[in-house]
Amino acid sequence: MPELRRDPIIGRWVIISTERAKRPSDLTVEKSKSRGGFCPLCPGNEDKTPQEVFAFREANTPPDSPGWKLRVVPNKFPALKTEGDLNKRGEGIYDKMNGLGTHEVIIETIKHDANASSLTTDEFKNILLAYKQRISELKKDSRFRYISIFKNFGEVAGASLEHPHSQIIALPVIPKRSMEEFEGAQTYYSYKDRCVFCDIINQEISDGRRIVYENDRFLAYAPFASRFPFETCLLPKKHISAFEDTDDNIFTSMAEALSLVLKKINTALDFPPYNYILHSSPFNKNVNDFYHWHFEIIPRLTRVAGFEWGSGFYINPTPPEHAAQYLREALAE
Amino acid sequence: MPELRRDPIIGRWVIISTERAKRPSDLTVEKSKSRGGFCPLCPGNEDKTPQEVFAFREANTPPDSPGWKLRVVPNKFPALKTEGDLNKRGEGIYDKMNGLGTHEVIIETIKHDANASSLTTDEFKNILLAYKQRISELKKDSRFRYISIFKNFGEVAGASLEHPHSQIIALPVIPKRSMEEFEGAQTYYSYKDRCVFCDIINQEISDGRRIVYENDRFLAYAPFASRFPFETCLLPKKHISAFEDTDDNIFTSMAEALSLVLKKINTALDFPPYNYILHSSPFNKNVNDFYHWHFEIIPRLTRVAGFEWGSGFYINPTPPEHAAQYLREALAE
Repeated sequence: MPELRRDPIIGRWVIISTERAKRPSDLTVEKSKSRGGFCPLCPGNEDKTPQEVFAFREANTPPDSPGWKLRVVPNKFPALKTEGDLNKRGEGIYDKMNGLGTHEVIIETIKHDANASSLTTDEFKNILLAYKQRISELKKDSRFRYISIFKNFGEVAGASLEHPHSQIIALPVIPKRSMEEFEGAQTYYSYKDRCVFCDIINQEISDGRRIVYENDRFLAYAPFASRFPFETCLLPKKHISAFEDTDDNIFTSMAEALSLVLKKINTALDFPPYNYILHSSPFNKNVNDFYHWHFEIIPRLTRVAGFEWGSGFYINPTPPEHAAQYLREALAE
Repeated sequence: MPELRRDPIIGRWVIISTERAKRPSDLTVEKSKSRGGFCPLCPGNEDKTPQEVFAFREANTPPDSPGWKLRVVPNKFPALKTEGDLNKRGEGIYDKMNGLGTHEVIIETIKHDANASSLTTDEFKNILLAYKQRISELKKDSRFRYISIFKNFGEVAGASLEHPHSQIIALPVIPKRSMEEFEGAQTYYSYKDRCVFCDIINQEISDGRRIVYENDRFLAYAPFASRFPFETCLLPKKHISAFEDTDDNIFTSMAEALSLVLKKINTALDFPPYNYILHSSPFNKNVNDFYHWHFEIIPRLTRVAGFEWGSGFYINPTPPEHAAQYLREALAE
């Protein structure tokens, strides 16, 4: 059973994999894995993944057979285990609990070589609707307090499989960074009686210099204090605290926005590795006036060095105003 | 002038370089730079660096000439500028100030090809004494609130020059991660009336499973909630809140400990890229009972993926108990 361990100084929880523990030789050879060859996520290989928990598929095709457009399956090598209880306990001054959680893979398309620039808006919409379906389903399990949805594109960004996929991790604790956002947004709300993200949206729209893309329902902008070049934040213009509460009728606008932002990044930066991650309200304060769900999109262009790791203080060589201009102009109609 | 900008939600400060702003083409070609050839840090090239601010050198040799063992020079491409004032100001809901600070390079040795495994304990002692001298000097400048000292070894870890060097950044704000440690340590102290690091030292010594190295004055251990494989913490056994208050007479023990930990990492993991960073008390609460200075040492073996970036929640594939055992056994006498 993996363990969740809490740092006694700053309170950060960490997953320690105890079962497939890596030895030094496993880590030092972790260079470029050979790609190509067999892909367990491709159609026809459905029996090579754990049984699907959700799919968009043609009528009358049985689960775990071809005929799907998108499939969600448990991760074959999960970071957390679904069975058991938390068994919270101390070890002297330290705190730990069982590594309980869910780790799923969203197979975004049947096309092995697809990328954000080749997927259609409809395909993006299906991916986003699958996120909503899985969160709505997984939050019924009262052991979970937060669900993290993210995508790694490219080896440098941490993707271990080429076939387009995103991942879902349901957690029994709230991640530190997410907690900081909730607390920061709550503090702002207690001063101003307004959502800090709504205030950001208003200021960015009236300023204009950091806008990357905008449609009727969604705004993408380069954050004022971006840590990384071309970091982009995408969110609904209207206040919604939890992603899963977003009405289905604005998912087409959402798909257009996410799709176009990623296509712009691919065009301006020549298909860089990237990560995106969904930030949404935790389950204990699901609907509220102070937090606003958003996607954080980070092209992986610069190396993070010792100073950044150790201090949490970032040096960004590209002003967000410049980054936004490059992205606005990329693929501009 | 670079800008310091504050994230309006979580309060993190970021340095935005406004002068040598990078365009997409600068970033996408940032692959492997060619090494070898001319080195501005080698003896004989003293005129290729800004004028030295400190050195250990042979008697009667003038500054900025050969005859040195260790030199400290301002960074030729500093992330922050030393001249001017902070000019704190708002921009709508955002906060910013001038990117005021100091950015220096410690040239650790005259030997271009040296690494931690080839340096002597005396050479390590000089490096550590130079850290102390520079902090003591720079903290006289009342504009600074924190000094960060760190080393990047290897390109993957962010080193842009091969010649052994560390870096110093003096800042007008306290970095977020450091602030979290101070606040966490203060909270622990308010409950227990004890330093959390002193409690960790006691528990690690009596437990023993996570000890990497120990001598009369210093302890190196793998943290209970390590984020990364082979992450190591090195600190004085006796409570000292600020690095610069450490007595010169224990610098030999300190040099032995740091030197041996890095040599063990090189042996066990085949000279991996690594970062280390010094964590010490900020200047406004320099001497206190709750914070304990330490080095954080992180071999860069795993890629940090979207989940970790976005959530601050790490998945560590190597239990610290295993990592510590490998390092204890490497180079064991």
